Amino acid sequence: MNVVTTVDPRDGRSRSTDLTETGDARLETIAGQASRAARWLSGLGRLGRAAMLDAIGESLESRRAELVATAEAETGLSRARLDQEVTRAAVQFRLFGDVLRDGGYLEAMIDHAADTPLGPGPDLRRMLVPLGPVAVFGASNFPFAFSVAGGDTASALAAGCPVLVKAHPSHPLTSHASGEAIESAVSGMGGPDGVIALVYGEQAGRSLVRHPLVRAAALTGSLGAARAIQAAIDERADPIPLYAELSSVNPIVVLPAAAADRGDRIAEGLFASFTGSGGQLCTKPGLAFIPSDPGGDQLVDTLRSRVASAGGAVLLNERVRDAFVNRAAAFERAGARVSARPQVQPGAGFIVPPALLEVGLPDLTAEIADECFGPLMVVVRYGEVAELDVALATVPPSLTGSIHSVAGDDAAVVRRLVDVLAARVGRIVFDGYPTGVRVSWAQQHGGPWPSTNAVHTSVGATSLRRFLRPMAWQDAPEWILPEELRDEYRVIPRRVDGRLEPGME
Amino acid sequence: MNVVTTVDPRDGRSRSTDLTETGDARLETIAGQASRAARWLSGLGRLGRAAMLDAIGESLESRRAELVATAEAETGLSRARLDQEVTRAAVQFRLFGDVLRDGGYLEAMIDHAADTPLGPGPDLRRMLVPLGPVAVFGASNFPFAFSVAGGDTASALAAGCPVLVKAHPSHPLTSHASGEAIESAVSGMGGPDGVIALVYGEQAGRSLVRHPLVRAAALTGSLGAARAIQAAIDERADPIPLYAELSSVNPIVVLPAAAADRGDRIAEGLFASFTGSGGQLCTKPGLAFIPSDPGGDQLVDTLRSRVASAGGAVLLNERVRDAFVNRAAAFERAGARVSARPQVQPGAGFIVPPALLEVGLPDLTAEIADECFGPLMVVVRYGEVAELDVALATVPPSLTGSIHSVAGDDAAVVRRLVDVLAARVGRIVFDGYPTGVRVSWAQQHGGPWPSTNAVHTSVGATSLRRFLRPMAWQDAPEWILPEELRDEYRVIPRRVDGRLEPGME
Repeated sequence: MNVVTTVDPRDGRSRSTDLTETGDARLETIAGQASRAARWLSGLGRLGRAAMLDAIGESLESRRAELVATAEAETGLSRARLDQEVTRAAVQFRLFGDVLRDGGYLEAMIDHAADTPLGPGPDLRRMLVPLGPVAVFGASNFPFAFSVAGGDTASALAAGCPVLVKAHPSHPLTSHASGEAIESAVSGMGGPDGVIALVYGEQAGRSLVRHPLVRAAALTGSLGAARAIQAAIDERADPIPLYAELSSVNPIVVLPAAAADRGDRIAEGLFASFTGSGGQLCTKPGLAFIPSDPGGDQLVDTLRSRVASAGGAVLLNERVRDAFVNRAAAFERAGARVSARPQVQPGAGFIVPPALLEVGLPDLTAEIADECFGPLMVVVRYGEVAELDVALATVPPSLTGSIHSVAGDDAAVVRRLVDVLAARVGRIVFDGYPTGVRVSWAQQHGGPWPSTNAVHTSVGATSLRRFLRPMAWQDAPEWILPEELRDEYRVIPRRVDGRLEPGME
Repeated sequence: MNVVTTVDPRDGRSRSTDLTETGDARLETIAGQASRAARWLSGLGRLGRAAMLDAIGESLESRRAELVATAEAETGLSRARLDQEVTRAAVQFRLFGDVLRDGGYLEAMIDHAADTPLGPGPDLRRMLVPLGPVAVFGASNFPFAFSVAGGDTASALAAGCPVLVKAHPSHPLTSHASGEAIESAVSGMGGPDGVIALVYGEQAGRSLVRHPLVRAAALTGSLGAARAIQAAIDERADPIPLYAELSSVNPIVVLPAAAADRGDRIAEGLFASFTGSGGQLCTKPGLAFIPSDPGGDQLVDTLRSRVASAGGAVLLNERVRDAFVNRAAAFERAGARVSARPQVQPGAGFIVPPALLEVGLPDLTAEIADECFGPLMVVVRYGEVAELDVALATVPPSLTGSIHSVAGDDAAVVRRLVDVLAARVGRIVFDGYPTGVRVSWAQQHGGPWPSTNAVHTSVGATSLRRFLRPMAWQDAPEWILPEELRDEYRVIPRRVDGRLEPGME
């Protein structure tokens, strides 16, 4: 069996681990365990699973030092960032604990038997039930919050679905340690093997989504990865949903009055947003529309000088580094002026300086408007606000779009920009930056293709809807119903005969 | 341009209509109109759209006589059945009116700015917004309730999405008349062209889902139709969701005590359920598991005699008739005994008698357990209740599964059957029959593949979720927010800082 290797992106050195790529026999074992674990998770009930999620959060935090040190050596991300990411992962598990305790996520509905315009109607009761074992593909850029211990895992477990994670090859040891932290919390509650399990290797990832017991897949990754996973799913007799978060340019529009009013502050904000975590965030702003006027000139000057004095960022792996350098060069060939050109220093790890590119709005091509993963932003200088409509329509649909304005701006102009962005993104940010995604009830992390492929979010309370399906019971005897659908169970929000009952606390 | 023909299934005669197949130029026109109509629907607001849906319901009922007569000549379904179906279509539009007035479907959530374990969190507000123009493929078997004026159209319009319907070739004139009824109600409210539009012809159907302005598709139809539509969608640069309701066997289990207690009544119920509307219902019970004991014998005897004395049913079209006859013959070749063998009478329209097939449980093959559209049911005789687990696992996942039991039955046996069915269906019916789908809040019409391809329902209040996507506003000024997300708008159910507020009436 192939040994799994790990690479330290700070020096580019590779070494072997004790882990091996997952073969078919092992996959068969863990799929069977996951199928049995689904019954255990169901038997735990909402409150039991909430306790389990809290315990997982605690387990992650209790291993914080080990997790951060392991991830630092595999990702090159800073300790401060990784430390906060462990917190975020724990927060995510706890948020889903709250979601479970609330119970509204079940969308419980009761229609009592009644006469209807179509004759006597039977008693109908509906709620959401788990899909079954879920395959999760860990992302490279968030070794905790979008990986083994990430939001896909947390939301799937909350839904009652066991999770089989394909570990990202960029951080196998972090993945392994995260899996152990989760397993330890689960077994502390008397849970069986298979509530969570990891697989290693590309082939194992494909086998995973082809396995008959796997009922859904979730991915945060590239379009290429999504295509490969979808191709494997297409080999199944029974298709399963793939929830994929893929590619996002996250345009930012700075209106003239905002540039004049607080151009320096916006420049600082943009710099922090596009260079933080080496620009390796799905919400990194890739395009900023800045006015061609004195306020805009000042803003861009400040940006240029911040970029010029910035140190290099360690990128996650060699592939990311090479793609970044190639993409920056392609933008330049396509007509963008480069304020800082990233250089690869041989033998020095996957380190690059940030890159700022500039282009006039008439020269903005589809190529320059495409995503570049890493610390690169393209500044697009525009003359008239009226030109932005058409320009924004050439930007690929994205997770987010941002508008910087001042209170005195023409409401019609802002409204028009909001309308254009609303058709093309899933979250509109006002006077702020898209990075730093808040983990909460109302978060939406998903948008029109290619930012995601589904009408759902992969972050926030509602993301567990992806791993649930509706189920109805018709004229069921009370004792056979899930307790949440029995008449006298009034603890959770339910819709009874069409009327919402908020639930008692 | 090709003229559209209509066939009277009662005599098999074909005649030309004034309708022509839809060409590319016309499709371009109506797609553009639909895109503009989306803005009009959005501007109407929830309450305006609710009024529009009510008006459509009224318009359909005001044209009841014309619609029923037109559909009778195109489908061969009875006047009584078609009359009730017009009522059902109107009920569906009105249900979505109620859903809009309630507003809970928006899943509105507000997270005020707050300190979080990850630092200051921005103000986030989320609700669901329409996807845009939707392609609906009318079904043959419900010329109203699953066709132009059907649940897909009603739920998409409710969501705020214009609808482009591919008319089913089995009832073009009914489709046209239904479209006019809807258009008339829309234009009575000052609505533009493009809120609803029809296309005719297979090629137009494929072009429809390839059109860049079309944002989702919905189908009730065959696996073959779904594959053809998906293949057309796969040609797009940007994939769109296809919500397909496809194939369902709807197994029914009669436990021994129920057969002994009320075998005759169950036989009557089964007969009515599998022969009603010529057995051409997605929820028709195709397999009935009956005990091999005196109670079961009596039940099956009653069924046989009801079938033997039944008249013929007019099937919807030649293709349905031929597929039915061929499938029945294939079941017989696969080992099922035939109590009544369907015969085709040349020149007499698409008329067949109902067919009852019988097989012992050990001889139940995958072929016999597959769907046969039309008035055919396979009776499977079982010896021991314990055998049912494995047998049910060979039945393809379905929309529904039903269990007939008595109060004195072993709870463990019933629970075990419910567990087996719950993994394989979307609705479990107790002591009843799956046909006669109630249109209400808690309905679930969808289940694991191949019954549907999505974690949603195509009937009932929640079916509009298919045509919505979540959208979030971060730190938005109040005036730019949809009114449902403003602090003081407390009319609808909303989740504010994680706490459900039921809304004021």
